[in-house]
Amino acid sequence: MRTFKLTIGYDGTSYAGWQRQARVDTVQGRLEGALGEIEGRAVTVHGAGRTDAGVHARGQVASFKLEHAIEAGALWRALNAKLPNDIRVVGVELAPDSFHARYLARRKSYRYRICQGPVADPMEHRFTWHVPQPLDLATMTRAGRVLVGRHDFAAFQTAASAADIRSTVRTILELRVRPESDGIVAIDIVGEGFLRYMVRTITGTLVEVGLGRRPVSEMSGILASRSRDRAGATAPPQGLCLMAVDYSNA
Amino acid sequence: MRTFKLTIGYDGTSYAGWQRQARVDTVQGRLEGALGEIEGRAVTVHGAGRTDAGVHARGQVASFKLEHAIEAGALWRALNAKLPNDIRVVGVELAPDSFHARYLARRKSYRYRICQGPVADPMEHRFTWHVPQPLDLATMTRAGRVLVGRHDFAAFQTAASAADIRSTVRTILELRVRPESDGIVAIDIVGEGFLRYMVRTITGTLVEVGLGRRPVSEMSGILASRSRDRAGATAPPQGLCLMAVDYSNA
Repeated sequence: MRTFKLTIGYDGTSYAGWQRQARVDTVQGRLEGALGEIEGRAVTVHGAGRTDAGVHARGQVASFKLEHAIEAGALWRALNAKLPNDIRVVGVELAPDSFHARYLARRKSYRYRICQGPVADPMEHRFTWHVPQPLDLATMTRAGRVLVGRHDFAAFQTAASAADIRSTVRTILELRVRPESDGIVAIDIVGEGFLRYMVRTITGTLVEVGLGRRPVSEMSGILASRSRDRAGATAPPQGLCLMAVDYSNA
Repeated sequence: MRTFKLTIGYDGTSYAGWQRQARVDTVQGRLEGALGEIEGRAVTVHGAGRTDAGVHARGQVASFKLEHAIEAGALWRALNAKLPNDIRVVGVELAPDSFHARYLARRKSYRYRICQGPVADPMEHRFTWHVPQPLDLATMTRAGRVLVGRHDFAAFQTAASAADIRSTVRTILELRVRPESDGIVAIDIVGEGFLRYMVRTITGTLVEVGLGRRPVSEMSGILASRSRDRAGATAPPQGLCLMAVDYSNA
């Protein structure tokens, strides 16, 4: 058995998220279906991040093992021929037997994109959250700075998943708020790991700050409260994209 | 009756083109439906360009007349509330009674976007044509220059529409081939008017030149032949976008 590392991008609009589920279309399900055809039996794929329904990826990483003696370049071409064009395999490489896309991920980079201005860009409705009122990016940057570092992010996870999680302490390494292009604001967040809905709840909270609905000074109180009720609304899924997963030192 | 001028953008992926047709979803049909609800009776909308199925717009212009005493700002908000989010009204203004979006259009600007590189960008599959082999943009620019000016473009129109057209002479004012961003090539074409499929057939021909499959020297022969068989393949619709319609001096 050889172990492969795959880098994948997808427009998540048409999928019920990454994770395989019975009777609904998921990215993992599509990938396992294509690999199963090549291998001639069921193949299990491990993804670095379980992106939610409607969330996109440019640098999702997945690992799996094959008996089939296919070479990495041929596997890459075969997968892209079998997969729909809203899922693209960016790269395939052989990996050490011990490689596991989920357990060995050291850092993940997410980008959340917001469309500004009175009229949403119709070409961006699948890839952005439309916030018509102007955001104060400098204030959002200051609020974001409070979150960088090792903190208990219980206030920023979905209440529904709280019971499954041992620790809600996570480390955010970078958080940048910047104009990406005309009318688009991007929030880039790099961390060692994230709780479910954490990036979207951080985004929703930063947007409330950027609209002047909350002062920056509330941020540390929200963190300290560990209470989901104190943070802002969860931003919608379609603005979010998993940009990269880093395995250095793994 | 007051006359309105509307500027509209749309992601054309889900529509059978601009023009109203029985039993299929079109942009004109959606717009007339929304206006009909406001006016309380059928409203006819005239569009500057009849974009084909799958073609997009950022600056399509439409005109129509209303009895209803609604003000332009309120009409803009009402239309965007009624229309799906892949069709957005960018602006609404009162126009002179004589204004007609189609007959008075003086210049139209189209952009055709090509995705380069071995792997198509999954976020761009609705908005680009994927050409994996590298294009020589300098050669395409030279080939494009041959087309600028007033010429008989019969070789670049779809054979199917040839019978309906009185003259196939058109004027191209500008044609630029340029890298738009990482991995995206844009062809911008401005003209006084276009034949059906003309921009897409010019694009398909320029791509054959850019791939080295045809010499630049063939271009003037294709034009002179007036024969559709001599030009390249028609590029697929999803790369094309109507960017702007100009009415100055009209």
